[in-house]
Amino acid sequence: MSKSPEEEHPQKAFGWAARDTSGVLSPFKFSRRATGDKDVTFKVLFCGICHSDLHSIKNEWGNSTYPFLPGHEIVGVVTEVGTSVTKFKVGDKVGVGCLVGACHTCDNCKNDLENYCPKQILTYNSTYYDGTKTYGGYSDIMVANEHYIVRMPENMPLDAGAPLLCAGITVYSPLKYYGLCNPGMHLGVVGLGGLGHVAVKFAKAFGLKVTVISTSASKKQEALERLGADAFLISRDQAQMEAATATMDGIIDTVSAEHPLLPLINLIKSHGKIICIGAPERPPELPIIPLLMGRKMVAGSLIGGMKETQEMIDFAAEHNITADIEVIPIDYVNTAMERLVKADVKYRFVIDIGNTLTPN
Amino acid sequence: MSKSPEEEHPQKAFGWAARDTSGVLSPFKFSRRATGDKDVTFKVLFCGICHSDLHSIKNEWGNSTYPFLPGHEIVGVVTEVGTSVTKFKVGDKVGVGCLVGACHTCDNCKNDLENYCPKQILTYNSTYYDGTKTYGGYSDIMVANEHYIVRMPENMPLDAGAPLLCAGITVYSPLKYYGLCNPGMHLGVVGLGGLGHVAVKFAKAFGLKVTVISTSASKKQEALERLGADAFLISRDQAQMEAATATMDGIIDTVSAEHPLLPLINLIKSHGKIICIGAPERPPELPIIPLLMGRKMVAGSLIGGMKETQEMIDFAAEHNITADIEVIPIDYVNTAMERLVKADVKYRFVIDIGNTLTPN
Repeated sequence: MSKSPEEEHPQKAFGWAARDTSGVLSPFKFSRRATGDKDVTFKVLFCGICHSDLHSIKNEWGNSTYPFLPGHEIVGVVTEVGTSVTKFKVGDKVGVGCLVGACHTCDNCKNDLENYCPKQILTYNSTYYDGTKTYGGYSDIMVANEHYIVRMPENMPLDAGAPLLCAGITVYSPLKYYGLCNPGMHLGVVGLGGLGHVAVKFAKAFGLKVTVISTSASKKQEALERLGADAFLISRDQAQMEAATATMDGIIDTVSAEHPLLPLINLIKSHGKIICIGAPERPPELPIIPLLMGRKMVAGSLIGGMKETQEMIDFAAEHNITADIEVIPIDYVNTAMERLVKADVKYRFVIDIGNTLTPN
Repeated sequence: MSKSPEEEHPQKAFGWAARDTSGVLSPFKFSRRATGDKDVTFKVLFCGICHSDLHSIKNEWGNSTYPFLPGHEIVGVVTEVGTSVTKFKVGDKVGVGCLVGACHTCDNCKNDLENYCPKQILTYNSTYYDGTKTYGGYSDIMVANEHYIVRMPENMPLDAGAPLLCAGITVYSPLKYYGLCNPGMHLGVVGLGGLGHVAVKFAKAFGLKVTVISTSASKKQEALERLGADAFLISRDQAQMEAATATMDGIIDTVSAEHPLLPLINLIKSHGKIICIGAPERPPELPIIPLLMGRKMVAGSLIGGMKETQEMIDFAAEHNITADIEVIPIDYVNTAMERLVKADVKYRFVIDIGNTLTPN
C-alpha cells in the first residue's frame, strides 16, 4: 500500500494544493524525498503563477490528479546538496522551471531538449522516477536533481526573475530556434499578457522592431511607453491590419483564446513564420493557399531545455530583463486565480512564499 | 481599341485554348511578340499537363479570363534569339516553366525568388509588361525573356523532362529550403500523383528513406518496386499509421483534396516539418497543441525561382530523374483532362506538340 503524501518521504513539506476540480487551493501537508546524491534542496522564496497552473488545477486539460500542488516558476536559496552535486552549494540562489526529469537517453535529451523528451517529468502532476507524484512550487521547500536546477544570476531579482523560468524560456527558445533574433527584424507579438510582455522585452534586447497585436486598445500606451514596443496594432481594426500587410518577419502568438490565423498570416512577409506558444482548445482553420503563396509557416514551441533555460536567464540578467509582477501573499492565491481568469494582472502574479507561507 | 489575339503581335502562333468555363480546349489562332533584345523564341516540342491547367481552364480559382491557353511545362528548340541574349543560341534545347516575368527589384527577386515576387507574371492567364495577355505552352511557338528560359541538359529527354519544369521544381525547392535533403533522413510523401511520384525520385536521389502515404493500397507495389520508395502507408489504416508515429523527419503533402492534418502531424518526429504543396480549397483544422508539444511546423512552398529551377533540372539530369509520362497527341487533350480529374494517369500527360499540333 502506498503511503500518504505526508508520510511517503522523509523531508516534511508544506504548501497549498487543490483538492478537486473546483481548483480552490488550501493548505496541504506533504513531504519531499531526502536530498539524493545528485539532488539540490532549496528553501522556496518566490513562485510565479502561470496560466498553466490555472488550467490544470481545474483539470481543464483532463489529466490532473488530486491533491494538485501547482507552481513551476520557483526560486529560492539552496539549503542542502547531495554528495555528488558539483554545480551548486548551500546559499546559492537557484530556480526550478517546468521540468524535473527526463529519460536522458533519447535524441532530444542528447541534444539538450529535455522539454521534448517523451518521458519528461513535469514539476507538478507527473510521476517521478521513484513512482511518487511531483508537487510544484507553491510550497516551502523544493528538491530537484541538479540537472534541473537553474542558477539565478547575482543581479537578477528573485521575485521578478521567477516567471522567466517558464514565461521567459517559452518566448526565448522559439525566437532563437526559428531565427527571429537578428537585429533589424520585425516581430509581431500577439497578446500582451504573461508571455507577450516578456516576448517584447527579449525581442527588443535582440535588437528587433516589435509590434504588439492586441484586441484591446487599452494596452497601447503601456506597450509603447513602458515595454518599449515600436508599434501597436488593434487586431479588430481592419484598416490598421491591412496597412501592416506583409511587414513582419515573424509573429509570436501567445494567445490561447480562439482566434483566426489568416489575419496573422497576412501580416508576415514571404518566408515569414508564425510561432504559436498559446494552446487554443479548438484547432483554428489553416488557410493553406496563403502559406503556399508566401512560403510561410505556422509552427509551435514549448518551453525550452535546461541548457537553454540557463542561457536565457543569463541573457536576461545581462539585459536587465525581468517580468512585470504583482507580488502577493499565499492567502491571496485563490483571488489571484480569479483575477487571472479575467487577465486582470500586469503581467504575472508572484507568490511571496518566503514571507507568507507558514504552516497554520 | 486593343487588337485581337491574332493581330496584336507580329509572330503568328497557334494552339489549343478554352473559350469558357466548360474548360473544353479547341484550336486557337493567336500571336506572339517579336523576339525582343533579351528574348528567346523557340519551337515547342512537348508540353506537360499540370493539375493547375485543369483547375484554371474551368476557372476553379476564380481568376481565369478567356480565351485561356494553358501549359507551363514547355520544352522545345530555340529558333531565334534577341541581339542581347547571351545564354542561348539557335538550336539549343530549352524550356519554360510557370513564370515569364517579375519585378526584378523586390527582395524576393534580388534573392532569385521570382516565384514569390508580388508582381510575378505567370506563363498563362497573366498580363505581360506590354499589357498583353500571356498564353501557355499548348501552342506551336513560345517567346520568353532569357531570364525565364531553362537550359535542358543534353541527356534529358524532352518529353519526360518537361513536367520537371513545374512538378519537379515544386518538390525540389521545399526539400532543399526546409532542409529535408540530407542522406539518412526519413521523408513521407503524401499522394502519389504528378507531384508525389517526382518527390519520391528526388528524395531517393538525395539519399533519403522515403515512405509513400496514400489512401489507395493499389499504388503500393508500384511505389515500392518501380519508384523505389522504401515503405508504403495506407492512410486509412489506423494500425499502420500508429505504428509509424513519430518516425519521419518531414512530410511533403501533395494532396489537394481535403484531408486532416493531425494524422500527418503524428507521423513526424519532434522538430519535424509538414510541407504543403497541394492547395485544398477549404482550410483544414490545425491542431496547435501537437505542434507545441513537438516543436513541429506546417509550411507551404510554391514552385521555385529561375536559378533553382536550372539547378533542379541539372540535378535531375545528373541523377537520371524524369517524370513518368503518357505522351498524347493534341487532339486527345480534352480526354486527358477528363482522365486527370479521375487521377487516371501514371503520372503526367505530356502533349506531343511537335508532331501533332498543326493548324487545321
